[in-house]
Amino acid sequence: MKTLEQIAAAVGGRLDGPPGLVLRRVAPPEEAGAEDLAFAKDERHLALVAGSRAGAVLCREGDEVGGRPAVRVENPRLAAARAVAFLSPEPTPPPGVHRTAVLGPGARLGEGASVGPYAVVGAGSTLGARVTVGAHAVVGEGCRVGDDTRLDPHVILYPGVTVGARCRLHAGVVVGAEGFGFEPDAAGPVGFPQRGTVVLGDDVRVGANTTIDRATFGTTRVADGAKLDNLVQVAHNASIGRGALLCAFAGVAGGAVVEDRAVLGPQAALSPDAVLGAGTILGPRAALASRQRLSNPGKVWMDAPPMPLAAWKRWTVGRLRSGRDAPSRGRQDLSMPRSRKDT
Amino acid sequence: MKTLEQIAAAVGGRLDGPPGLVLRRVAPPEEAGAEDLAFAKDERHLALVAGSRAGAVLCREGDEVGGRPAVRVENPRLAAARAVAFLSPEPTPPPGVHRTAVLGPGARLGEGASVGPYAVVGAGSTLGARVTVGAHAVVGEGCRVGDDTRLDPHVILYPGVTVGARCRLHAGVVVGAEGFGFEPDAAGPVGFPQRGTVVLGDDVRVGANTTIDRATFGTTRVADGAKLDNLVQVAHNASIGRGALLCAFAGVAGGAVVEDRAVLGPQAALSPDAVLGAGTILGPRAALASRQRLSNPGKVWMDAPPMPLAAWKRWTVGRLRSGRDAPSRGRQDLSMPRSRKDT
Amino acid sequence: MKTLEQIAAAVGGRLDGPPGLVLRRVAPPEEAGAEDLAFAKDERHLALVAGSRAGAVLCREGDEVGGRPAVRVENPRLAAARAVAFLSPEPTPPPGVHRTAVLGPGARLGEGASVGPYAVVGAGSTLGARVTVGAHAVVGEGCRVGDDTRLDPHVILYPGVTVGARCRLHAGVVVGAEGFGFEPDAAGPVGFPQRGTVVLGDDVRVGANTTIDRATFGTTRVADGAKLDNLVQVAHNASIGRGALLCAFAGVAGGAVVEDRAVLGPQAALSPDAVLGAGTILGPRAALASRQRLSNPGKVWMDAPPMPLAAWKRWTVGRLRSGRDAPSRGRQDLSMPRSRKDT
Repeated sequence: MKTLEQIAAAVGGRLDGPPGLVLRRVAPPEEAGAEDLAFAKDERHLALVAGSRAGAVLCREGDEVGGRPAVRVENPRLAAARAVAFLSPEPTPPPGVHRTAVLGPGARLGEGASVGPYAVVGAGSTLGARVTVGAHAVVGEGCRVGDDTRLDPHVILYPGVTVGARCRLHAGVVVGAEGFGFEPDAAGPVGFPQRGTVVLGDDVRVGANTTIDRATFGTTRVADGAKLDNLVQVAHNASIGRGALLCAFAGVAGGAVVEDRAVLGPQAALSPDAVLGAGTILGPRAALASRQRLSNPGKVWMDAPPMPLAAWKRWTVGRLRSGRDAPSRGRQDLSMPRSRKDT
Repeated sequence: MKTLEQIAAAVGGRLDGPPGLVLRRVAPPEEAGAEDLAFAKDERHLALVAGSRAGAVLCREGDEVGGRPAVRVENPRLAAARAVAFLSPEPTPPPGVHRTAVLGPGARLGEGASVGPYAVVGAGSTLGARVTVGAHAVVGEGCRVGDDTRLDPHVILYPGVTVGARCRLHAGVVVGAEGFGFEPDAAGPVGFPQRGTVVLGDDVRVGANTTIDRATFGTTRVADGAKLDNLVQVAHNASIGRGALLCAFAGVAGGAVVEDRAVLGPQAALSPDAVLGAGTILGPRAALASRQRLSNPGKVWMDAPPMPLAAWKRWTVGRLRSGRDAPSRGRQDLSMPRSRKDT
Repeated sequence: MKTLEQIAAAVGGRLDGPPGLVLRRVAPPEEAGAEDLAFAKDERHLALVAGSRAGAVLCREGDEVGGRPAVRVENPRLAAARAVAFLSPEPTPPPGVHRTAVLGPGARLGEGASVGPYAVVGAGSTLGARVTVGAHAVVGEGCRVGDDTRLDPHVILYPGVTVGARCRLHAGVVVGAEGFGFEPDAAGPVGFPQRGTVVLGDDVRVGANTTIDRATFGTTRVADGAKLDNLVQVAHNASIGRGALLCAFAGVAGGAVVEDRAVLGPQAALSPDAVLGAGTILGPRAALASRQRLSNPGKVWMDAPPMPLAAWKRWTVGRLRSGRDAPSRGRQDLSMPRSRKDT
């Protein structure tokens, strides 16, 4: 429960209503009641707010909200994100080490750190202040974890991994497993031992069951503010830039580079040593070939090899037409291709 | 060990042989011995049964099985599924709470529930009758799990999640992690806190290492009877309909809707707020764009943007021909496209 | 710390320098110091070695290294892999059973086996000599694990699974969960119970969070020396051949066969009962349709249905051109296709 004035201060907006109005939570306009703060991110939302029972609204300067109490901001959705964090902070586990947790010799915990049931913290690891280690999480030997970072239940850090401050790793994340590198030999592929490490910067967010491999030599890096969705794969020696976004099933192969603020859509991929330039956007399922470099800030590229979004849309029109117009053929002719060996 | 008569009753078929014949298990015709019940799902299987040593056979009315004892049914493979469950029920762990399990205050367990080694059940959670919680599974605070549901080892339910009755969640499933939503800000992307929840209906099946995110506001839903394969991603505020099937690597983005009995093939995807209509089938790797709606019950659509299967097959014939017929060019001309910045 | 002579013996190379020269570790030429052994896998590396401070170098016969101490080999990268394993062996946990581990009745451990904190080994399971079971790993009842195999933290083996010798399973791997098979019924899909098992051969490597399902009947097989990356899916009754390589997000559907030394690139897929012939390479995201067979040893095939790499490159040239040259159209004409139902 906070007052409208407190909320305006927390989100950096202009108070436009009774300072002492008490609000309980943020809600989308469709669901907002008298104690709720709605937010109007666009015209459609604004119309919904007009017909809603919301007690107050986050909106832009000049938005018409029928005299309703408001906090005026530049970006209502960004303000809503901040207001949710302010009104409904995520509960944090109580500080302290659960009686069932196993701490190796020399493990050090910062002030206010919390280690959950059955968590294992390896020898010589250092956890910062207010770090939370969830149930069954495993922090390998010699890891370092920065202040205020949350490791959810079942997170695994292999030995020697570094995680910065204010990170959030969701359940099932694996950081520092061996990279996938092999040399062919007469008796079969021989694994190249992976003796490098992984360093995550500050404010990194990693989604559930995502995997980030350790480097062959040197370091796999995820820079400050990068955000990874669930089920993403980051291979050995890859480098993910500041504020980059990697959506679900995105894959970054060995040695590939995602520069600052670049985006990989869902299922998008970089082949080994490819480079996605700063601010460039690979759309869903787009991919760069090995050593290919693509840099086009703010623009969306589709498919593999990638082409600009507009060109891709034109191409898909032709593709759909050719599927529609091609003469129908017997089942024979439509069969899948077979290799010469088989035919 | 059951009699042919008991089996006929269990699968809802017509007894066509000695009622007292004792059978041990179901087997495919290639492997069936004298104590086994084979099943003939098609002509090929029927021929195999003829040459097999099977003690009895599940087949259709009118199928010629050379006088062999039989149970006559409409769908032999469906009957076989029921007969396997009847003859070879999956072992269930003994009821009771393992001495190493950690139960939070106010956690309630139904009759016959089983909580395995090192499992953690959070404060205020309610487990129904005969629920099994596998080793190291974590049920967050305030969760509800319906009767006869099985949570396999290492399943994670974040706080506040609801799971219906008779569900099966395989190892490594994560339900209720934060959705992936961000607002751009000068200093980088700001996470939109995710304060909604997840509700799974009854008879839902979730494969190993699949992730289902909690909603931003409101609820991410998976309705009764939906079946999800391994390594599937269901994002915040998505809705999966009754009896829907999602194959491995299928992805359903934020707010997208899979209507009842719709199917996503492997690697198929819905972009944010897309809708796949009831009974419509997205083939392997087919995808809908944001807000796109596709409804065509019983039909298969391929690729992205999707086209009907027959049109896609025609298109691929042209594609393969153009690859074959295009004049060969020097390596230069075949190079990957580069952005203007780079050239 | 080993001598040049010891290293030459370990990698099977020719000593070309002072036998007693002591070296500490292997490093790429850019990072190598006076106590390091650099390796020159190609011309570019060789030039880097020339300007490096490396104490010695792994290189080919005839490579010019300016009189620097060397070990001469046929394949410097393969030799480097062996030298890393020799100079910097991965630390192994101490033998013995952690006081918190839970061993079921009849579980047997070989000499030198190590069972970590909170690991669970089911009744009747057999672990070979020097097997390591990481923290929180779960070995179900009746499993068998061969000598020198490493199960990393949080690995799950469902009951009855067999793993060979010298395997490495990374964190979060799930072996033996139920396959994804259903029969349609009026009330919705009915799961076909999965009563088969999984057998992994010797020297198999499985990446983090990869899933390998048990067979419906019979056995899902991964043969000796096969290497699987992170987040791979192997479905029920699939068969993976000797020395096969499966990259991240590769998917092998039910009953499909990957023959010996075949390769699935990232996101590549086999549909049910498809066969990828020995030594054949499916490039990134290439896929075979159900029951399709492709056999073309040593050749790369792209896309789905697949075509040879050279043909695919020709096709992409035409595709990029058609996107560039097609007349621009209004937004209307570029809209995504909708089904007849919706229009």
